Amino acid sequence: MKVTPWEVSGAIDYEKLIKQFGVQPLQGAVNDRLHAVAGDHYLERRGIFFAHTNLDQFLSATEKGEPVYLYTGRAPSGPVHLGHLIPWIYAAHLQRTLGATMLFQIPDEEKFLFKDNVSLTDSKSWAFENILDIIACGFDPEKTKIFLDTEYAKTMYPIAIQIAKKTTASKAKGLFGLGMEDNVGKYFYSCMQSVPAFLPTVFEGKPTRVLIPCAIDQDVHFRLTRDVAESLGYPKPATILCRFLPSLEGGGKLSTSSGTSINTTDDEKTVRAKINKYAFSGGKDTVDEHRAHGGNPDVDIAYQLLVFFHPDDSFIAKVAADYRSGALLSGELKKLAGDAVWAVLSEHQARREAARAHVERFMLRD
Amino acid sequence: MKVTPWEVSGAIDYEKLIKQFGVQPLQGAVNDRLHAVAGDHYLERRGIFFAHTNLDQFLSATEKGEPVYLYTGRAPSGPVHLGHLIPWIYAAHLQRTLGATMLFQIPDEEKFLFKDNVSLTDSKSWAFENILDIIACGFDPEKTKIFLDTEYAKTMYPIAIQIAKKTTASKAKGLFGLGMEDNVGKYFYSCMQSVPAFLPTVFEGKPTRVLIPCAIDQDVHFRLTRDVAESLGYPKPATILCRFLPSLEGGGKLSTSSGTSINTTDDEKTVRAKINKYAFSGGKDTVDEHRAHGGNPDVDIAYQLLVFFHPDDSFIAKVAADYRSGALLSGELKKLAGDAVWAVLSEHQARREAARAHVERFMLRD
Repeated sequence: MKVTPWEVSGAIDYEKLIKQFGVQPLQGAVNDRLHAVAGDHYLERRGIFFAHTNLDQFLSATEKGEPVYLYTGRAPSGPVHLGHLIPWIYAAHLQRTLGATMLFQIPDEEKFLFKDNVSLTDSKSWAFENILDIIACGFDPEKTKIFLDTEYAKTMYPIAIQIAKKTTASKAKGLFGLGMEDNVGKYFYSCMQSVPAFLPTVFEGKPTRVLIPCAIDQDVHFRLTRDVAESLGYPKPATILCRFLPSLEGGGKLSTSSGTSINTTDDEKTVRAKINKYAFSGGKDTVDEHRAHGGNPDVDIAYQLLVFFHPDDSFIAKVAADYRSGALLSGELKKLAGDAVWAVLSEHQARREAARAHVERFMLRD
Repeated sequence: MKVTPWEVSGAIDYEKLIKQFGVQPLQGAVNDRLHAVAGDHYLERRGIFFAHTNLDQFLSATEKGEPVYLYTGRAPSGPVHLGHLIPWIYAAHLQRTLGATMLFQIPDEEKFLFKDNVSLTDSKSWAFENILDIIACGFDPEKTKIFLDTEYAKTMYPIAIQIAKKTTASKAKGLFGLGMEDNVGKYFYSCMQSVPAFLPTVFEGKPTRVLIPCAIDQDVHFRLTRDVAESLGYPKPATILCRFLPSLEGGGKLSTSSGTSINTTDDEKTVRAKINKYAFSGGKDTVDEHRAHGGNPDVDIAYQLLVFFHPDDSFIAKVAADYRSGALLSGELKKLAGDAVWAVLSEHQARREAARAHVERFMLRD
C-alpha cells in the first residue's frame, strides 16, 4: 500500500491509514452531531467518508450559527473522472445543508511542478474544463468561489509565505517524501494548498471555521496546515476524509493516467464498455459455478460502483444478496453498474454543458 | 571573508571573489564598449563597479538600438544607508545614458523569510520609506517601475514556479548555504528574485536584454537566473557588480544592523559625529608622527567615503597625496569626508521629501 497525494497503489488498508495519518474515525458522537446539522447522505452513511480531523470544533461553530466555510480543490492536468466527483458531490450536499460558503482551489501549478510532462498552459486549459465539472456538481453560484492559484496569487502568496516561514525543508521532505533532487517548487507548494484554509478568517475578519471534504491522501497537506494554523492566528481546519474509488482493475484508486478510468465526458457506450471490459469481477469463472456458489461483491468493482453512485440502500442490499446467492450474474451486475453510473453521468453532462454559460459567476481573481 | 546575500564579513578579497563567483573583471574591450554607450561615471572609473557577467551581449543589444532594461532591488527591513545608494546612483546614470526602462523590485518577503524578527507588516512599512530613497536617486518616472513582491505576485508567481521547476532543493541549498532546518520559503525565494530578469521579455513580447547593477553578493541569485534562463526562452541577464562600501570600522560592508551605519535620513550633525567617532583611520597615532611619516588612505574609511561619494578625481588624488605625505591630518580628512557625504545626503534628503508626492507614478501593481 502506498498513499501520498501523488501516488496511491496497492490494497488500501483504511484502518491502518487512520493510525498512520493520525486522523479520527468518523463514528459515534461526532457522527451524530454531523447528522444533526448536515443531514444524512449515502456517501457518509456507507462509510465512504470514514475519517476526520477537528470535526467537533467545526460542528460547534455551525451549531452556534457562526459563518462556516467549505474548501476543496482540484489540480488540473487531465479530465475529471468518477473518483473526483465523490468529495465534490458530498461537498455540494454539505453546502446545501449548512449554507456554507465554498472555496474551490484550482492549484494549476501543482501538476506542473510535480510532473515532467505537464506545462502551465496544459494545466490552465484543463482548469477550464475541470471547472465545468465542478459547477455541474451543483454548487451554489452565490456562495461558491473558484480560483486558480496563478490568477489569485496576489492574495495567496503573502499568506503562503507566512506558512512557508514556519515550515522547514526537513519537514516538507518528510511529509511529502521529497528528495534533494526534487525541485524547490515541490517544497513550497503545500504552503499554497494551505492558504484557502485561512481565507475564511481573512474574509470574515475574525477566526472562522472551515471543513475540507477530500480523499484521505490529501490530509497530509492539511496536517501541515494544522501544525502552523494557530501560531499564525487561524483556527485549525477540519477535514472529512473519503476512501478512494478503486481502479476498475481493483486496488489503488481510479486514475486518468491508467487509461481505464471512466471520465465524466465519456459517452454511454464507452462507460458500459469500460465496465464490461475492465471492471474486476468477484464472480465465479463459470455461470454454473456462480449459480451454485455465488460471487463476492466486496471485491467486485461493478458492485463498488453501485455503492459509490447508487443512492438507494435497499437496492444495494438486494444486489449484494443476489450476487452472494448466485441469483445475480457478473454480467448482470455490470449492467446494473453501467445503468447507475450512466444515470449519474448523463445528468452530470447536461449540467456540465449548461455550466459553460455561468463560469464567470463562480470565478474569483485578483 | 564571508560573502553571501545575507552576510558579508571579514576583509574582502575582490580578486578572489571574481574567481569564486565565476564572474568577469570589468576591464579591456568590454569596458571600452560600456563607455561608448553609457558614458563615463566615477563609480565605474574608480573600479567600484569592478566585475560583470554577460555585459557583452547586453551592450550588443544597446549598440543595435534594441530596447533594453535595467533591474535592481531593495529588500526592506530598515532604513537605507550610504552603501545602498551606490548601485542606485549608477543605475540612475545608466538609465539616463541608455534610455532604459528600470525595473525596481522590492522583495518585501525576503527579510521576513530570512530574519526571525521581521514581520511582513514591518517590511511593508519600510518598503514605503525605502521607495522614497529610490526615487530620490533620480530615476525617470516615465521609465521606472517599482513593485513589491506581495503586490505583484499575480504576475510574478506564475514565472517564479517555472524557475522553481528547474531548481533542485540541492542546488538552492548549495548556492545559498541553506540547511534542512531552514524554511521552505528560503528555498523558494530566489525564484522570485529571478523573475524581474525575465519581465522585459514578457513586456516586450520578444527576447529582451536586461542589465542588473548590484553589489557582488547578489550575483549568486543571478547565477541561478542565468542557469535556467535560456531553457525557459529568456536571454541570460547581464550583471554589473560593485564592491561593498566598507563598514565605518573597516572591513565587511556598511550595515544597518551594526548600529554605526550612516543612514540617508541622518542629519548633518549625526553624519559628522559618526564619521568622527567610528571611521577607521589610516593615520598615525600622534600628529607629530603623522606629519613625519604620513597616513595610509587605502585603509582609511574617511578616504574611502570620498572615493565612493566625491565625484572629482583630481580632488581625490590630491587628498590621497596630502594624506600620504602627512600634510593632511586624520581629523582634517574626516572633515572632508563629512563635507562630501553631507553634500550628497543634503541633496538626497531634499529629493527624498519631494518624492513623497510622486510615489504612485512609479508603482506597478497587479
